[in-house]
Order: sequence, then structure tokens, then C-alpha cells
Amino acid sequence: MIIHSKFKDYEVKIEQNLDFLEVLSQEENTEFVIDQKVYDLYQEHFQAIPANRLILIEATEQNKVIQTALDICEKMTEIPAKRNAQLVSVGGGIIQDITGFVANILYRGIRWIFVPTTLLASCDSCIGGKTSLNYKKYKNLLGTFYPPDQLHICSAFFKTLTERDYKSGLCEVVKFNIMAGEDRLAQITEDMDGLLVRESGCVNRYVESSLLFKKSFIEVDEFDRGERIKLNFAHTFGHAIEVVTNYEIPHGTAVAIGMIMADSISLKRQLLSAELVTGSENVLLKVIDINPELLDVPQEQVLDAMRKDKKQTSQSLTAVLLTENGLELIHDMETEEVAYAFDYFRSLYADYCSVSR
Amino acid sequence: MIIHSKFKDYEVKIEQNLDFLEVLSQEENTEFVIDQKVYDLYQEHFQAIPANRLILIEATEQNKVIQTALDICEKMTEIPAKRNAQLVSVGGGIIQDITGFVANILYRGIRWIFVPTTLLASCDSCIGGKTSLNYKKYKNLLGTFYPPDQLHICSAFFKTLTERDYKSGLCEVVKFNIMAGEDRLAQITEDMDGLLVRESGCVNRYVESSLLFKKSFIEVDEFDRGERIKLNFAHTFGHAIEVVTNYEIPHGTAVAIGMIMADSISLKRQLLSAELVTGSENVLLKVIDINPELLDVPQEQVLDAMRKDKKQTSQSLTAVLLTENGLELIHDMETEEVAYAFDYFRSLYADYCSVSR
Repeated sequence: MIIHSKFKDYEVKIEQNLDFLEVLSQEENTEFVIDQKVYDLYQEHFQAIPANRLILIEATEQNKVIQTALDICEKMTEIPAKRNAQLVSVGGGIIQDITGFVANILYRGIRWIFVPTTLLASCDSCIGGKTSLNYKKYKNLLGTFYPPDQLHICSAFFKTLTERDYKSGLCEVVKFNIMAGEDRLAQITEDMDGLLVRESGCVNRYVESSLLFKKSFIEVDEFDRGERIKLNFAHTFGHAIEVVTNYEIPHGTAVAIGMIMADSISLKRQLLSAELVTGSENVLLKVIDINPELLDVPQEQVLDAMRKDKKQTSQSLTAVLLTENGLELIHDMETEEVAYAFDYFRSLYADYCSVSR
Repeated sequence: MIIHSKFKDYEVKIEQNLDFLEVLSQEENTEFVIDQKVYDLYQEHFQAIPANRLILIEATEQNKVIQTALDICEKMTEIPAKRNAQLVSVGGGIIQDITGFVANILYRGIRWIFVPTTLLASCDSCIGGKTSLNYKKYKNLLGTFYPPDQLHICSAFFKTLTERDYKSGLCEVVKFNIMAGEDRLAQITEDMDGLLVRESGCVNRYVESSLLFKKSFIEVDEFDRGERIKLNFAHTFGHAIEVVTNYEIPHGTAVAIGMIMADSISLKRQLLSAELVTGSENVLLKVIDINPELLDVPQEQVLDAMRKDKKQTSQSLTAVLLTENGLELIHDMETEEVAYAFDYFRSLYADYCSVSR
């Protein structure tokens, strides 16, 4: 798959096994930045990397900061090729955020190959070029658009993901399929068992179709000023859920909760049929896996978190909702609607847990 | 003049007087970053800026660092419009470098209006979108491509430039006219008196034609990977001159010295006629204004500085030379040639000073 970007066209390769890592490890004039956990698990594939060209990073929000990026930049000055130096990074979204930023700001942009190792990064964030860093109390305050030059995706990595992280990735896969319309929703409902047991052919198919769906948005609006905003479907809610639970709920899962909240408002506004809403909820509940007590927070905190989102550029609340006519950006969301949606999810999830356990 | 960029098309407005500053100062959701010196001189035009939206910065290399950029980002979180916030900056190249970087990395890119106040920034660096920051001992290690959304250029600012800074800007104007061919060189030789006394009609004409010349390069190669490299004519030498003199020689002047050095090599390689070389030297010597003692450094230091340049991506030395067929990138420059060129300039300048003083 080729992604067209204003910076350059770049290729997404779906790999059948991990053999490509041995080849990558032999690249010259290259700094390798690898998630510590991934390195520990797949060490035998990285043997060809020279010790002085390897940086291992704990993938934590605390490390997703400017100093980590600057340390990598400084280390890379040791490579004689200077602005022809290359960065190869292997890991999930946090590693992507840090290393994409580095590749962008070092020598005004260097060549960068990224290997996503989580389902979330593979099916979604790895294309589109978004990078971000936390600064002080501000999450993702800093960031740029800078796509990699090449992507290698391999579902073999997903075998070692925790159930929590894998399901968070599945939430994003489900999201794309809900956004893509009724037929796709019906299909993924059918395929859900294969996805849940990580059946590699099935997973690969869904990773590829998710990326294809996203590609159509990012190629027309790379810098997120128009059409691409629709990809933020449910994110306004999801980000707020992440904030009020201190990021105890992983991103994909929070967005899935956001989808149920958003759809409950769509239903109330009569923008979406009850059938479609129930259909979405049934799939989403299979992949949302949280401790319900995390959501025992006052409604006011959720509203507060939503108001502080960087996408909220005016006084009234903005969100992307799903409607019978596709995704729509609305600017008149009422605080009462958000409060209703939050309670709606909590009660739906409580019912689901009491039945399924 | 409209500049086409991959990010956006942006307009360069040549202003006849400073009235536009009053209008700019009233922009809403805007942070203003102004060079302290410029603010002190033109304070009456900035009265409409609210005190809590104004940041004054000393334009020094010590301030062209990541912390300055981060401080501006943090201050801008106070603007409710968040990613629709706007940055207006007023100053020379250093202010442009810092604020362009901020505009790029805050919320993945915000709207940015830049008002260059030096001749150097107005005739050259303000278009093309290069931003840069120093990091530790590494000058301009960090940087991105991020053009402003709008540029306002006004020669009224040049009246308060020191002779040293104004002439440094003129060096770049001369550079473009030498690069553009014999006819343009002849013309600027004729107009040099008007330029030296800062005659505003004449200066405006040359600022505009310099930008037009540069525009043709940056529009075909925005990210500096091909054609645009030719704009680095003489820069390999110029940067080295800046380094060995601890940046006591301003950028434009260093590049002018670099042009004389580069042309001396072109002449020796019989790539350029003696007539053209002498013609260039005659104009350049009128605008190069340095203390010759600054160049009393061992040749080896110049070579060393050249080797460390981030544009030097391989073992042999690379430079752009002027030839009868236009600008050419050569990869086989010998250290002996650089040593010769350095001595050539020193002796030429010594002769010029002894005659003209």
C-alpha cells in the first residue's frame, strides 16, 4: 500500500513473518530506537545492530517528552552521514510519537523507517504522520506532521501483546468498520471471534482494510484542517475518558467508550437508527474491557476535560457524530447531552458486566 | 507575491510604510513575539497589543534554543482558541527561527504571520520555511520546514539597522544577482550606490527580485533535497568562516567571503572567466566590511569547520560552485583548494583595504 503525502509517498508493507527485522538491522548510517519490552521479547532478530547504534526506551508517557527526543538527536550527531543519517524505530504509539518527532526536527528532517508492534499503531496511528510529545502538565501539546519513509507491519508481534492492549487495538479496528457503514459492521460482527483469538490471516485483513479506510481521509487532508477531522469520531469523548481515569484506560478502549457515548447522542437527536446503535454497541462491548469502578467520577470532570481538549477551539462544544448520512461535525453539543451520554455508557456497561460474568 | 508550498500557499506583501503594524496588533487570539530592540525602536506602532499577549526576546544565538520555544508554547496555552491560536512575530532571522519552530510544533502547527525587520531576513530567509535552533554545542542542529501564512516586508525598518547588519543583508542581495547571471551582475553594479545609501525604492526593487529568484528554487524543491541545494552557493565556505571567527562576522558577510573563495576555485578549475570573477569581486568588496584580523586563523581550522557541516554527508568535500553553465554541485573538492581559496580572499581583502583606506 502506498500512502501519498505532501512530504513524500511512503510504502506500508504487510510482512508475513519477522525475517525483515534481520535485514533492517543491517542498515547503515542508522540509529535504532526500540521499545525496551519489544527488544527483550524479540532480541534474536536484532543481533546485527551495532551496540553504539542502539537506543532502548521504556514506552511510558513520562518518556514521551522533549528531553528523550533531544537525547536521540544528540546521539545521532555521531553518525558521519549527518542529514543523510537514518532512524529506524520499533514499538507502539509512544515510540512512534517520540521518534517521528526526532526524525522531523533533526537536520530539518531525516529518513525514518517505522515498525509498529501494537495492533493500535499498526491499524491506525502508523499512517497519517502525527507525532506528539507531552510538555509539563500538557499531554500532546507539542507535535508535528511527519510521516515515515517506510512502514513494516507484522501481526506476529501481536501474539505477545497483553489482552488489554490487544483489545484496545481491536477497538480502533471496530471503529473504522462502524464508520465505514452497515455492511462493514455486519462483517466484523461475524469475524469477531477470529479477531479475538488473534487469527493472523483475519487480523492482517482487518489491519489492511482499516488503513485503507484511514488513507482516504489523510490523503485529502493531511494537516487535519477539514475532512480528516471526521476521523476524530468519538475522540472528544474518548480523550475526556482518558483524562478522568488518569490514562488507566488505554486509548483505543477510551475511544470505543466514546463511540457508545457519541452514538447515544446521535440516537437521542434521531440522527441514527436504534438498530444501528445496538449493532455497534454489541460489537464494542465485546472489545471494551475495563474495571467499571474507574468511571465512578463526577460528570463535571468529564465536561471539564472535554472543554480543555485542543480541538475545542470555541466556547460551545464540538464533536463528530455518526449519522445516517455519514460522519458530521457538530458545534452545538450541550453539556446535558454529554452528561446523559456518560451515564448511558456507565449503565449499559454495568448491565453488560452483570450479564456476561 | 504568492509562494507555493506543500503546506499552503502564502503571500509576501511589500508594505510602503509601517501602518500595517497597527492593524496586525489588533489581531485576536494572537501571541506577539517581538525582538526587544525592534520593540524599543517602533513601540508606538505596537500600542494595541495587550500586555499579556506580548513576548519580547533578545535576538541572540544563546536564545535560539529549545527552551525559548517551549516557553512561548506554554504561554500560548492561555489562548482559548487553542489550535486556532495565531502567532505574529517581528524581527530578524533569529526571531524567525525561534517562532517558526514554535508555530510548527505547537498543536502540530498553528497560523503564523512573520514581519522580517532586517534586510537579510527580508530578501532571503523569510521565504522557504526553514526554521532552526541551536542545541548544546551544535549550531542549527534542530529545525524544520514550516513557512509562515503571511509575510509583511517593509524597508522602513532598514533605516535603523547598523551599517554592519545592513551590509550583511546586501551581501545576500548581491549573491542572488551574481547567481542570476552576467546581466544582473552588471545591473547591481550600477545600482550599488543607491543600495548603499538605503534608497527605499531601489531597496524594495532588489528585495522583490531577490525573493523572486529564490522562489523559483524553493518551489520545485521545498525540502532541500535537490535543486534547492544550489542556493547553498558559497555557504560551505561561509559557514566555515562564521565558525572560525566565532560568529563575529555576520552571516551574509560570511557568505560573501565564501563567494569570493568559491569563485577563486571556479577560476582555477577554468569553470568561470576571469572577467566575471573580477566583476563579482568588485561588487562584493563594496559590501564586505570586516576587521581583517578576524581571519588570522590557521587554514586547518577552516577545513575542520567545513568537514563538520551538516551538509557534508560523505568523506570528500562537497560545495556548490558557479560555472559558465550555472550553479553546479561538486563532490571532489580538495583540501588544498580550500586552503588556496582562504589565502586568496585574505590577500585580496588586504589589498582592497590598503587601497581604499
